Amino acid sequence: MQLGVIGLGRMGRIVVDRLLAADHDVVAFDIDDEAVDEAANAGARPADSITDLAAKLDSADGKHVWLMVPAGDAVDAALEELEPSLSADDVVVDGGNSYFEDSVRRAESCPAAYLDCGTSGGPAGAELGFSLMIGGPADAYQRLTPAFDAVATGPDGHERMGPAGSGHYVKMIHNGVEYALMQAYGEGFELLHEGRYDLDLENVASVWNNGAVIRSWLLELCEEAFREEGNDLGDVADRVEGGSTGTWTVQEGLEQEVPLPLIYTALGERFGSRADDGRFSRRLASRLRYGFGRHTVPRRE
Amino acid sequence: MQLGVIGLGRMGRIVVDRLLAADHDVVAFDIDDEAVDEAANAGARPADSITDLAAKLDSADGKHVWLMVPAGDAVDAALEELEPSLSADDVVVDGGNSYFEDSVRRAESCPAAYLDCGTSGGPAGAELGFSLMIGGPADAYQRLTPAFDAVATGPDGHERMGPAGSGHYVKMIHNGVEYALMQAYGEGFELLHEGRYDLDLENVASVWNNGAVIRSWLLELCEEAFREEGNDLGDVADRVEGGSTGTWTVQEGLEQEVPLPLIYTALGERFGSRADDGRFSRRLASRLRYGFGRHTVPRRE
Amino acid sequence: MQLGVIGLGRMGRIVVDRLLAADHDVVAFDIDDEAVDEAANAGARPADSITDLAAKLDSADGKHVWLMVPAGDAVDAALEELEPSLSADDVVVDGGNSYFEDSVRRAESCPAAYLDCGTSGGPAGAELGFSLMIGGPADAYQRLTPAFDAVATGPDGHERMGPAGSGHYVKMIHNGVEYALMQAYGEGFELLHEGRYDLDLENVASVWNNGAVIRSWLLELCEEAFREEGNDLGDVADRVEGGSTGTWTVQEGLEQEVPLPLIYTALGERFGSRADDGRFSRRLASRLRYGFGRHTVPRRE
Amino acid sequence: MQLGVIGLGRMGRIVVDRLLAADHDVVAFDIDDEAVDEAANAGARPADSITDLAAKLDSADGKHVWLMVPAGDAVDAALEELEPSLSADDVVVDGGNSYFEDSVRRAESCPAAYLDCGTSGGPAGAELGFSLMIGGPADAYQRLTPAFDAVATGPDGHERMGPAGSGHYVKMIHNGVEYALMQAYGEGFELLHEGRYDLDLENVASVWNNGAVIRSWLLELCEEAFREEGNDLGDVADRVEGGSTGTWTVQEGLEQEVPLPLIYTALGERFGSRADDGRFSRRLASRLRYGFGRHTVPRRE
Repeated sequence: MQLGVIGLGRMGRIVVDRLLAADHDVVAFDIDDEAVDEAANAGARPADSITDLAAKLDSADGKHVWLMVPAGDAVDAALEELEPSLSADDVVVDGGNSYFEDSVRRAESCPAAYLDCGTSGGPAGAELGFSLMIGGPADAYQRLTPAFDAVATGPDGHERMGPAGSGHYVKMIHNGVEYALMQAYGEGFELLHEGRYDLDLENVASVWNNGAVIRSWLLELCEEAFREEGNDLGDVADRVEGGSTGTWTVQEGLEQEVPLPLIYTALGERFGSRADDGRFSRRLASRLRYGFGRHTVPRRE
Repeated sequence: MQLGVIGLGRMGRIVVDRLLAADHDVVAFDIDDEAVDEAANAGARPADSITDLAAKLDSADGKHVWLMVPAGDAVDAALEELEPSLSADDVVVDGGNSYFEDSVRRAESCPAAYLDCGTSGGPAGAELGFSLMIGGPADAYQRLTPAFDAVATGPDGHERMGPAGSGHYVKMIHNGVEYALMQAYGEGFELLHEGRYDLDLENVASVWNNGAVIRSWLLELCEEAFREEGNDLGDVADRVEGGSTGTWTVQEGLEQEVPLPLIYTALGERFGSRADDGRFSRRLASRLRYGFGRHTVPRRE
Repeated sequence: MQLGVIGLGRMGRIVVDRLLAADHDVVAFDIDDEAVDEAANAGARPADSITDLAAKLDSADGKHVWLMVPAGDAVDAALEELEPSLSADDVVVDGGNSYFEDSVRRAESCPAAYLDCGTSGGPAGAELGFSLMIGGPADAYQRLTPAFDAVATGPDGHERMGPAGSGHYVKMIHNGVEYALMQAYGEGFELLHEGRYDLDLENVASVWNNGAVIRSWLLELCEEAFREEGNDLGDVADRVEGGSTGTWTVQEGLEQEVPLPLIYTALGERFGSRADDGRFSRRLASRLRYGFGRHTVPRRE
Repeated sequence: MQLGVIGLGRMGRIVVDRLLAADHDVVAFDIDDEAVDEAANAGARPADSITDLAAKLDSADGKHVWLMVPAGDAVDAALEELEPSLSADDVVVDGGNSYFEDSVRRAESCPAAYLDCGTSGGPAGAELGFSLMIGGPADAYQRLTPAFDAVATGPDGHERMGPAGSGHYVKMIHNGVEYALMQAYGEGFELLHEGRYDLDLENVASVWNNGAVIRSWLLELCEEAFREEGNDLGDVADRVEGGSTGTWTVQEGLEQEVPLPLIYTALGERFGSRADDGRFSRRLASRLRYGFGRHTVPRRE
């Protein structure tokens, strides 16, 4: 089928490539001309604007446009430019990490059918395909099935979750769980690293990945990390970036009154790792030990 | 090769079957005669006591005995009966969930070479093979490689971690991580279940298992749980049993001064789920709200 | 000085009584006529509407109105009725638990000077006076000092924190800390209660309140709770109500990327105590133990 | 009454001074001669060995000895030297931070009655007196009441908790709660410090200490800390020392299956503050973000 893809960054480009590999007809646009050229070399038809992209899509059966731009203003900007070319027969897919309430709002105002599509799998999805969690009208989801089959790991790698917003909602929570899983493995390996035995952590991860209860893709990535960085993780800094989807997950937990202590703790570890001047809370606790017990207070040099 | 297997419960029986399937010669004993008969029907040579089992093993190249009995006194009892028949040429494997310090102690006093072997994979290991984390002398580990190949998922499914105790040490921490992973998935699915959308949780788990970052064997088991119990988990009670290996992991974290907040929280959720009279801490907090603010105190009926 | 007090519930009535006790001239209004009558009996001048209250205040030096109504719509409703009577010379105090961003908004649109005033101390403040954390213009704060002296514990019991919103901001965080303190004492007494010794918890609290590092007013309330409810807290249920200010505190922590694990955990315990059908996360964890280990799953009867 | 005091460090010296101030007859010993001289100058009778101290105590009504030495081996060493001089009529008080199981063991082997006495209040107790939590035989506790009255804040500042070990047990849990309270205040002040308003934290603490629900002695120490160190806590380092009593509390929670998430988290913050090479868990999490998403990994310089 025919699809326009807007946004040709790392993830957008994989979408293009997987659609092309499945013999779909792709029109590609990005604000970076070079990215458009590269997509054209790979077999996509280039567009020099969003309007041009829309014009190059056949309207007979409805146009299909896949957005793969950063969450936030970039999505609204692309939609603003795209919407004059859209009608009720068309389908827009937002494959980025948008906040689910933004997706609900966009679905309401978009002249076309709007599918919010949580995308997981990262660059490794280039070969394996992605996991796609999709929200929005069932018939639009149905119509794009051939495209989803191509971009996902296959027919099992995409699923309609429910109405507008539900795709990004499920992806948001996926990411919250992801934070906690990473921190859980981190705790285990920290204890193995600091503990009583001199262990080869790559070996530990490897033997766990072969038949142990906690085997997973993230654990395969742990194995890779120790292989590539060394048993002490070399010069990898104690600083974890990111946090927006985890923050949204915790906020939704507050809204729903569902306690998420592991996800919250994992998110807090990220925040804590970025406290460049030290944690004020602990500095106060240290000073209080002097206050009640005249314990020596360690001072900064 | 020739092996005696002591303990023919669910896990021990799988060890026997996988050894037999790889054409090893197995002598089997259990305090339950019926279990011995069943192992004999499967092709093992039956023994009617531990002494008998030892006698039926050929001493020429050293005897090999695999213990698969519950952690604790049962291991010491079996060893006490077994040790008179052992010499320095023999090898004993403890495949249960023993505390690693017990394994260090047993390795020191055992007349034979002693391998502590953490075993993960559960009943599913019958088909797939287990993940085996092994501690003890390298030559003994080497000698038993054909047996480990058979019981594990294959040559990649077992690994020598280090000296005595290190196998059970790594298994202990594996289990600590396992508690946290289970609770992390639990938090995600609780929020999905209580949240804004009416979601099919089996579908969510399924689409995540196809290409998403958090895919794992435990997530496949979540999928199975929703399929078998229903989207609301039916009559599964809010009561999580078990906890010894998680407790040991937390204790070791205290010893090593490594914070394990996710593992601790997951363990605490188990404890909390078993507080049949309610949590005293929360009852006091509720009463304090009356103390300072005259807020109504909910009372038991 | 002269003050109008709107809202004569438990807290508003204490404000009236303390103002009267300090010989201030109080005009009192509440939507409940009976509450107005009672305040009149105590010495206040009754008003039968907010407009009437405003009319009964002398405008010469500017009118002073103290709102003590529930946070949220009730504040906006009172202000809507009050504002036609206000001018730039007047001062409005919001002594309730308003969200600080609402206070910033109200301060911007209010024709009078607007002071947001966090009030802590609960009904015990009737005798002792309150702790007042005040945000808004310094001159308005200055002007109302005689009233604040009367309502607070004295001159040390009130303080201007900063510009609009800062009073309710500091009160919000006060309450977040309060949740954590209550849970911290709760943990200690739970362990004492479940632990090795048969202890008289009122005695423990009493001896701690006499000279121990953790002595506090909340600990005095623990002592009172054990005295009044008994060592087992009688029929106090495991259900902790409330949570809005704690939720706001956690949300602000997310916004500022400040981890608040103790406050979050204390809030989560409240949520958890209200999960009448059990915690889904733990039910799933229990079922997963069957999935990988064939452990028995406790079922609901 | 007559008492021997062994151990004249900061706390032991306060015990001596308070006993002297109440006109008790004190024989004082320390391994540091200078400390003995100073106690003698203050009015105590000096002893040059533990044996000498025992000899200087009148045996008619039984000897009374108060140990105030560091927990652990020092207590056993002192007792070893002291016990030949003791009989069943005598009473020994251990006022240090001993582990409660050690106290149970010592009480069993000590020829005299043995009272384990948890002591809280720190150097401030010099003026105010301490809070004393006492375990052991009721008659011995009764007999030493005059001494306890003097050392504690008064008759309300000491209490018999129960049999041997219960005094140190209650003190252990007191300290666990203390860790959590300090961290709870720390969280609140961290958020105030990092948050939206430019606040004077000493003022905040002061106004809270005057009538607010969370007022406490620790909060008075917060106020003092901001006054003495400044609003940014000056050069106080992010490093919290100590941890043994908190660790024991958590271990006892594991034993009793009582979850103590706040106390555990507070303890973990101490451990984390001492991880000089960064937290391995977070370093791994950061690297995993590259693994699945090709996110940039911050590196150490």
